[in-house]
Amino acid sequence: VASFKIILAYDGTGFVGWQRQASGVSIQGLLEDALRDLDGRDVTVIGAGRTDAGVHALGQVAGFSLERTIAPDVLIRAVNARLPPSVRVVAAQEAPAGFHARFDARTKTYRYRLWNGDVISPFERHYAWHVSGALDVDRMAQAARLVEGRHDFAAFQATGSSAKTTVRTISSSLVTKSEVAGGLMVHEITGDGFLRHMVRTIVGTLVEIGRGRRSVESMRETIGSRDRSAAGPTAPPEGLFLVRVDYVRETAAPPRDRLAAER
Amino acid sequence: VASFKIILAYDGTGFVGWQRQASGVSIQGLLEDALRDLDGRDVTVIGAGRTDAGVHALGQVAGFSLERTIAPDVLIRAVNARLPPSVRVVAAQEAPAGFHARFDARTKTYRYRLWNGDVISPFERHYAWHVSGALDVDRMAQAARLVEGRHDFAAFQATGSSAKTTVRTISSSLVTKSEVAGGLMVHEITGDGFLRHMVRTIVGTLVEIGRGRRSVESMRETIGSRDRSAAGPTAPPEGLFLVRVDYVRETAAPPRDRLAAER
Repeated sequence: VASFKIILAYDGTGFVGWQRQASGVSIQGLLEDALRDLDGRDVTVIGAGRTDAGVHALGQVAGFSLERTIAPDVLIRAVNARLPPSVRVVAAQEAPAGFHARFDARTKTYRYRLWNGDVISPFERHYAWHVSGALDVDRMAQAARLVEGRHDFAAFQATGSSAKTTVRTISSSLVTKSEVAGGLMVHEITGDGFLRHMVRTIVGTLVEIGRGRRSVESMRETIGSRDRSAAGPTAPPEGLFLVRVDYVRETAAPPRDRLAAER
Repeated sequence: VASFKIILAYDGTGFVGWQRQASGVSIQGLLEDALRDLDGRDVTVIGAGRTDAGVHALGQVAGFSLERTIAPDVLIRAVNARLPPSVRVVAAQEAPAGFHARFDARTKTYRYRLWNGDVISPFERHYAWHVSGALDVDRMAQAARLVEGRHDFAAFQATGSSAKTTVRTISSSLVTKSEVAGGLMVHEITGDGFLRHMVRTIVGTLVEIGRGRRSVESMRETIGSRDRSAAGPTAPPEGLFLVRVDYVRETAAPPRDRLAAER
């Protein structure tokens, strides 16, 4: 039995999300089906982040064990041959026994893309939130920095969630406007963990700040409220990308070279 | 009656191409249907370039006349409201009477994107040709320059075509490797006109040169042969983008600000 750690990229459009569901196609389900076909037995795949329906990944990490002996580069080809082109294994390596993709993750980085302008590019329709009307990127950038640090993020958690603790540490939260594509704005955030809908609710709140409906400083009060109704709306899933997951002992280089296209 | 010139972006995936066909959905057909709905009569739309099935546009230009008086910004919104999100009008202006989007075009610029690497990003699967195996980008760049100038491009024309003349002038033909995304290579070509499949056949030939199967200098002989069978294969449509169309009196700025995302 050997443990593996793989890095995955996927276009989340049309999937029910990472996690296997009673109905609909999930990334986890596709992978487990591919690996069962390969290993001749049921394989459980654990993902670092349980991305929601429509959310994308450039560097999701997943772990599993196989009975079969297989070289990592052969594994990449064999699994990719059993997956649709919307889901790709971009790297694979043997992992230490007991590797757990979610519990062992030290930080995750998410990117949220939004398109600010009257007309959204047809090439962005599944990969960015279309926001019309003026947005003040400087105000959004200032407010984004206010979520950095160790805070109780209960105000940004999907209602009905039951996380044991809602305290998370955000090491970086940056809003930038693309130099290349006029309408594109990006929020990139790194932390030791994220509550359900947390990134999307932070972005929904940042957009209200960018519109001038909320003050920059209000972000502190919103965090302090620990009240979901004090935060802004949940931004739609299509703008969200799980960019990378880092582990204490980084064993595989993240797929920067292959998948660093500005997205 | 007023004439209009519009700039269009579209994701060509799943369409039968620009031109209205007996069956399948075309960009021209969608536009004509939208404009008939708007103007209450049949409207003929003329496109600058007749892109094939699966080919994309960032800056296609189209022209038509309407009975109705309508401000260009209202026209943009009204037409976009009647089109699927995969097709967007990004700019519109009144055009001089008699404006002909195809005959009046001075130059067109196409971009062909290819992904060179073992695994193609899922986000590129509809927007780049996946080429595995080593490609020498310097050789391809050298050979690409050899198509610049006034030449008879009969060797690069789809068999069965019946263009009056196969002589075209290419003002620029450049191959570059993306600095941002490791696997991405781009061929950008500007000319006064293009034969059917011409860009895709030039790219297919450049890839054979990049693989070392043809010499750089062979590009001259291939042009000189005027024989389709002397050129390389036709590259697939999904990598091709009509980037912009220029007119003698440039009246509308191309949609650089809105759609310049590296693609």
